[in-house]
This record gives sequence, structure tokens and C-alpha cells, in this order.
Amino acid sequence: MSLEEKLAKLKTYLGEVNDLGAAASLLAWDQVTYMPVGGAVARQRQIALLQRLSHEKFIGREVGRLLDDLVPLEQELDPDSLDACLLRVARRDYEHAVKIPPDFLAKLHENAARSYQAWSEARPANDFSKVVEPLELTLELSRRYGEFFPESEHPADPLIDQSDEGMTVALLRPLFRTLRRELVPLVEAICSQESVDNSVLHRYYPENEQLAFGLKIARDFGYDLGRGRQDKSPHPFATNFSIDDVRITTWVDERDVREALFSTLHESGHAMYEQGVSRSLEGTPLASGVSSGVHESQSRLWENLVGRSRGFWEHYYPSLRESFPEQLGGVSVDSFYRAINSVRKSLVRTKADEVTYNLHVILRFELELELLEGKLAIHDLPDAWRDRSYRYLGITPEEDRDGVLQDVHWYSGAIGGAFQGYSLGNILSAQFYEAAINAVPSIPSEIEAGNFTSLYTWLKFNIYRHGRKYPPQDLIKRATSQDLMIEPYLRYLRTKYGKLYSL
Amino acid sequence: MSLEEKLAKLKTYLGEVNDLGAAASLLAWDQVTYMPVGGAVARQRQIALLQRLSHEKFIGREVGRLLDDLVPLEQELDPDSLDACLLRVARRDYEHAVKIPPDFLAKLHENAARSYQAWSEARPANDFSKVVEPLELTLELSRRYGEFFPESEHPADPLIDQSDEGMTVALLRPLFRTLRRELVPLVEAICSQESVDNSVLHRYYPENEQLAFGLKIARDFGYDLGRGRQDKSPHPFATNFSIDDVRITTWVDERDVREALFSTLHESGHAMYEQGVSRSLEGTPLASGVSSGVHESQSRLWENLVGRSRGFWEHYYPSLRESFPEQLGGVSVDSFYRAINSVRKSLVRTKADEVTYNLHVILRFELELELLEGKLAIHDLPDAWRDRSYRYLGITPEEDRDGVLQDVHWYSGAIGGAFQGYSLGNILSAQFYEAAINAVPSIPSEIEAGNFTSLYTWLKFNIYRHGRKYPPQDLIKRATSQDLMIEPYLRYLRTKYGKLYSL
Repeated sequence: MSLEEKLAKLKTYLGEVNDLGAAASLLAWDQVTYMPVGGAVARQRQIALLQRLSHEKFIGREVGRLLDDLVPLEQELDPDSLDACLLRVARRDYEHAVKIPPDFLAKLHENAARSYQAWSEARPANDFSKVVEPLELTLELSRRYGEFFPESEHPADPLIDQSDEGMTVALLRPLFRTLRRELVPLVEAICSQESVDNSVLHRYYPENEQLAFGLKIARDFGYDLGRGRQDKSPHPFATNFSIDDVRITTWVDERDVREALFSTLHESGHAMYEQGVSRSLEGTPLASGVSSGVHESQSRLWENLVGRSRGFWEHYYPSLRESFPEQLGGVSVDSFYRAINSVRKSLVRTKADEVTYNLHVILRFELELELLEGKLAIHDLPDAWRDRSYRYLGITPEEDRDGVLQDVHWYSGAIGGAFQGYSLGNILSAQFYEAAINAVPSIPSEIEAGNFTSLYTWLKFNIYRHGRKYPPQDLIKRATSQDLMIEPYLRYLRTKYGKLYSL
Repeated sequence: MSLEEKLAKLKTYLGEVNDLGAAASLLAWDQVTYMPVGGAVARQRQIALLQRLSHEKFIGREVGRLLDDLVPLEQELDPDSLDACLLRVARRDYEHAVKIPPDFLAKLHENAARSYQAWSEARPANDFSKVVEPLELTLELSRRYGEFFPESEHPADPLIDQSDEGMTVALLRPLFRTLRRELVPLVEAICSQESVDNSVLHRYYPENEQLAFGLKIARDFGYDLGRGRQDKSPHPFATNFSIDDVRITTWVDERDVREALFSTLHESGHAMYEQGVSRSLEGTPLASGVSSGVHESQSRLWENLVGRSRGFWEHYYPSLRESFPEQLGGVSVDSFYRAINSVRKSLVRTKADEVTYNLHVILRFELELELLEGKLAIHDLPDAWRDRSYRYLGITPEEDRDGVLQDVHWYSGAIGGAFQGYSLGNILSAQFYEAAINAVPSIPSEIEAGNFTSLYTWLKFNIYRHGRKYPPQDLIKRATSQDLMIEPYLRYLRTKYGKLYSL
């Protein structure tokens, strides 16, 4: 077989690995959107089977052998060429995957299922003791996971690198420290003022009008419904089965107009990224967003920097008021803008405003590092949570279900690697947005006219179309001519909230 | 490994074969219900991959070896025991599957895709010439398919046996001849009378009310929505991903109140069969309906023998009139009953009434036998269709799209084996219904009270729960103490339509 034939064969293999994963994703999408309750048992089994077959196909001898044989070709190719990038990414994924022994992986999956089950009972019962045992095993397994990568400095590094390639605890710690030091006093300064009345958000907003309004905006942004759709699910998410089938879900609270609207804008950001991947990458491992941080930068950019901006509402508020004439008839665009940007010391991350949000993330990130470093024991975790919550957010959860039991992440199989992406996303959202405006200064005024073409085009050209072609740091540098930096984000928050709260 | 361990291993394998098939079915369900148009290309590829992996796993060495090793166990077991039945069915499926060389199968699938594509262009264009070439290959492949089963009497027999185990051309020919000889004069006698005015069915019936009404009845029948659901798709069907997730689809015509209603009752019959399979068979090859004929007997029984009966409407007509007070306010239950049972010489099988329906089937069955026997060439098929349509139904399609291009079956990869099940289903529906009433004489009066418990219970006990445990003939004999027979069906038609048309 020639090298070209081997490359073609590798692509076929990887395409099948990908398609098996896509099938598992569709089964998971159906599970939370349309599946009747009775379907649960068989569905879990079927998803696990598809994931296992995908993994087995990937780590099987064939892929390894082809990758070995293709080293000479890779060295010959232009490193920016699609094939060179494909080989680099496939090799990286492969080498990571084969480091984890199958037995260990089986144990990890088994414990993940057990601990998720324990959590789904413990949370409504507000009983942390129910999760202690599986969580201790999760911690042990997460530490052992790190040991398969002896070159790592910190046990969390391999888990972080999985979703945010190139990121390490050593890089994240100072970044998050700066962020925290900026945010804690900012929250204090804001919350010492009289709080903004946002009762208008809690009037009765009927579901259908909410869904229609949010989806209309997502389409205006650039989300293509010929290659996507929106459905309802208890926890909003975006998922894709190819670059031409990228779906979002949302959840409606008829007593909170923010819920469906901002989750739709958020998920449409994720979805536009996946839809915007170049068609030439379809079916390859390059056909997806490059990292959790860059992905989240897109959801947050569209949700917050666009969707919570004054200019945006200049254009959209009249049509929102048309959809809800009784609820918003007497409310000015200014009051509405202040209400959707009101800052509150609150307990729940997913409902937090822009200013407090990162403190929720940093709290989790710090605690998980301490757990992995052996400085904190699982049974002390609830207290440590309360303590840190008070220090960062000035508020203490009375019940663990609003504290340590709040997020699913630690109860899904691993401690470490899941939270940093949220704050990286916030930081990057501002860096990308600033770069886009530098390139096309008319973007803010276009947004005031409900026109997102320039912004979308800039993002697609500089980020979306590349998929996983370049590592995240590379992509950031190519797009913004800078390494990842926190200043644009801090500037953004200071300016916006300085004005809102006359600081 | 002990024989018990080998049996357990075989079950695991077969369970995975089954789950891969179920995953493919979910992808196919999504394709026609919710998938955005853009998703089509990747979806076809993904479904084909899952079906291929399922097939490869099944015909792989492992299953064959285990089946060989388990012969001694099978001989020891009570032949009615679940394990013995499972081994029998698995062996039957396996021996059938391995007779088809993989190359041939690939060619079959490839031509199926090509000919389906050609048909989907030819039908709207009303241009039979577009399908001639792929259809000639389909005919050749269908004949060669038969040659892998040299013990067969007729080239159609292996294809028929695939969906209706034990059935052959030699058995079907006299059966269908009797049916045809009975029906042709019956249709003549009815259609020589003034036709029933059924314009009331074509008033405007809004979609939501139609869907709600149909689903309400399906639930009353016994279709469990905790383990099922209804969605819309262009061609109604039932599908299942486990015995606890069995879904139906329907299609709404706001200008024909029969469309959604009777397709819902029809598909709920299929679905109740699948839902009613004993839980002990879940995940095994026994967990599905036993044959195309027995399956269709259930859809037709609930749709026609129950849902088009006078007693049924005695109970349901008032609530239908409540859903559509303007449309049905002045229409008596008797007029409505006559309208939904009006007999017409018509061109389209899927819209045909009970009396003409089987003539549509027999026409197709006879033509496909002649094709396979080499007595009819593809290019003569449209004329042969028109000619036979005139002889049996007294009506000739002016356009091939209402004739030979009407049904997808021949354009989906094979000629033969797909149509006989419809008429077998009609015949069996009456045989089962008569047996149920013999066992529980109160069934008709219960139906008049909207109570289906006795009928459902009889069907579940005698048919549904067994899945594929017994071959169709065996099941029929166990349930009705008789072999398959046509008399109950002829009696049913004569009585019902004799009364309706005062013959």
C-alpha cells in the first residue's frame, strides 16, 4: 500500500470512529428530548456500546500501525496542510488514548455511572453523605489517571489538557488569581449599592413566544436552521452529528424571561462554531471545536458581549416588547438592560451574572486542585465549599444542594479538567471580540442595527472554519496576533459595570 | 467454558447485534421526524455503518462457533423453553445470513441506494424510464438471491420466508386466488350501486385536534405512552429500540379526517405487539414480532376490525363530534360509519378501503412472481400493471406515478417478499379476532363501551408476549387452534359489506 492509500485508509477508520461517536450523541440527544421514560435502561446500554465500539476501533492495532507508517509522510507535508494537521491531531488523540489501560477505563466508566446515580439521589435529598464513597473513588481514579502521564507537573494537568490542550495548572493559577483579585472587590463595590429591581423579568412570559423570540435572534446571528434545530431539554446544550446537523436545546421558565433567551443565545454560539467548521474537514477528527475554552468563548461572546449589550437591545427591545406587550409595555429599554445585567451575590453558577460567574468557577477550580494534591479530603469538601463561597461571593449555601452538590461535573467520573474552560471562555470572549472590532470597527454599530454579518464573518474566518486544525494557543495567536490575555476581559467588565453601577 | 457460559456469551453477542440495529433504527426515526435537511448525507453514512457493524458482528466467526458448540445443549432443552427457542431462532437467522456472500450483499445495498434515488426522482417526474436500469439489476439480484437457497421451489420463496417464515409461493398462490375470486365480484356488486357520499370526511379538520383524538384512542386500546410516543412523518410507521421504547408516527391531512386517525390506530396495533413482548425476551433476537403477516394482522385488527366497526363508533362518535362540532354537528353516527367504510375503485393501495385493498396487493404479488419467473420484462411492467389494474379493480392509472411507481418496495433493493404480508395480515386479523371473541364473547359489547381490556389481554396472552418464540404457523395454531385460514376473513367482509350495501 502506498502512503497515500494508507492515509486514505486511516481517514476511513477515523471517519467510522467519528460516526460511531455521532450515533452515540444522537442517542443521548434523544434521551433528554423525546425519549419516553421507559426507554432509559436500553438507551444507557446502547450509548455505552457505541462509545465502547468507537473507542475500541480507535485504539485498535490498525490505527496505531497506520500512524506509525505515516510518520514519513507527515514529515514531508506542509505542517499547515490539512493532512499534516489531521495526522498531528489523530496522533495526539491516539497517544493519549492508548496510555489509559482498558481495565482502568472500564473502572472509570463504572464508577462514573455509580457516582452519577448516587448524585442524582443525593442532590434532591440534600445529603452529601450519599456521594462520599463514590466521590472518594473518583478522586483516587482521577489521581491515578494523572499517573499515566508521568511527564505532567500536576495531577490535574492531563485532565485539563484533554479539554484545553496546552493549558496547565501552572498557567491557570496566576490567571485565575488575577481574575479573582479583580472580581472580589468589584462584586463588593456593586453589591454595597442598592440592588437593581429586576422584578420585570419575573412576570409571566408564555413559552411559545419565548421560544420563537430566542430562535429568531439565533437565526439573525447566523445559526443555520437548515443544518440545525432547537428542542427543549432540562439542561440546555449544543450537540452535533456532522457539521450539517448541529442542534441546540433550551429550557423555558415562564417566570424568568432570561432562562430560554440567554441559553438559546449561548448554545447558538456553540452551534455556530460547529456549523462553521470548513466542509473539507467533515468526517475527520478536525471537524469540531478546538478546546473547551475556545468553545465557551463563542457561547459567551454571543450570549454576553453581544446579547447582553446595550446596543443589541437598542435594536431588539422593540420586538421583544411586541412579543410581550403587557409584560413590557411600561418598561424602558434602559430598565430592561439594567435588569438583565443586575449583579447579585448568588449561590448557583449557571444562573450567575457576568461579574460573579467566574468566582463560582474559580472556587471549584481551587477546590479540585486541593483535592488532587491531597490537601483536602472529600468529607471536608462541603465545609471548604461554604467557607470559600463566603470569602469570594460573600454568601454561604445553607444546603449542600445549593453548594457542593450543585454541579454534575465531579459526579460524572473525574475531578479536574472540567471547570477551567468556563473562565477561559469568558476571558477569550473579550479578547476575540476586541480583535474583531479592531479589524472591523463598524461591528458595534452594525449590532445596533441587528446586523451580525461582519462579526460572524470575522469569527468564522478566524476561528470556526479551522476546527481543530491548529492548537488553541496557535489559533488565538493567529486570530488576535496575541497570546491569551486577560486584559480585554477585565476592560470589558470594568467599562460595562462601571457605567451600569457608576463606580 | 461451560455450555451455560457459552450461552451467556452468545446472548451478549446477540444483544449487541440487536442494540446496533436499534441504534440504526433511532437514527432512521430521527431522519424522518426531526432531522434538519442538511443532516441527510452524514445520516445515511451513519445508518449504513451501524447496519454493517451489526451484520458483521452477527455473521462473524464467534456466533457461528458458539452456535455449533451449543447444539448439545439445544438438544437437551425443552423445545418450548426460552433458551431452546432463542437458539432455534438465532440459528435460523445465522444460517440464512451466512448464505449471502458479503460482496453480493454490498452490491445489493449499493443498488438499493441507487434505485431508491432513481425512484425518488422518477415518481414526481412520472417517468418510469428513469428506474428501468436499476430495476433490471434489482430483478437480476433478486433472482440470484434465490439461488443461494437451492432447496427453494420458487425464486421468491427465500425472500418471502425472510419476512413470513414458512410461507411459500405454493401456499400463497391458492390462498390469494380464492381471495381474488371472492373480491372482484364483491367490488363489482358494490361499485355498481350509487356511491356513498363521503364529502363530510373532507371538511377542514385542524391538525392538533386530529392528533389528540387519535392518540387518545391508541391509549384506550392499550398503547403505553410511558414506553412510546407519536410524532409526525411523511409516511406513518412504527419502530422500536427496545420493548420499552416503541414509537409510532402519523401524517395529518387537514382535509381528510381518516388520514391521521386510521394511521394512528394502524401503527398503534404494530406498537402494542412490540410493547407486549414478554420482558424476559428483552435484548434477545426473540424480542420482536414474529412475521410480517402476524404483525400486519395486529395493525389491521385494531385499525379495521375494531376502529372501522359500528360498535366502536357507537362509543367514540360523540367524542369525535365534540372535537369537531362544526364539521360533524349535523352528521349522524350512521352516516359517518358509512362514509369511513365507503368502497371505491381507486388507484392507491395505501388509501384503499378494506374491500379493494387486497386486490392491490394481489396485483403486485402476481406481477413480481412473473418478473422473477422471467415471464415479464421490466420494460413491460407499466403496461402489465395497467392491464391487471383494469381487470381486478376496473380502473387504469393514467400516470405511472399512480401505478407502477406508486410503492417504494420494489425500488428498495428487492423484488419479492414484501407484499404478501399485507394480505396475510388481513386474513389473520379476522382469524385472530374470531378466536378472541370465541374465547371472550363479551368483546364486541365491551368495545361498544370503549373498553378494550379483554381483547388486548387475549391478544397479549396469545400473540404479543411470545415475540418470535414460536414460528408463525405454530403461533397461529396455538392461538386459534387452527391453521391459517381464509374463511373468517371472507365471512367478516361478506357480513360487514353485505349489510352496508344491502347485498
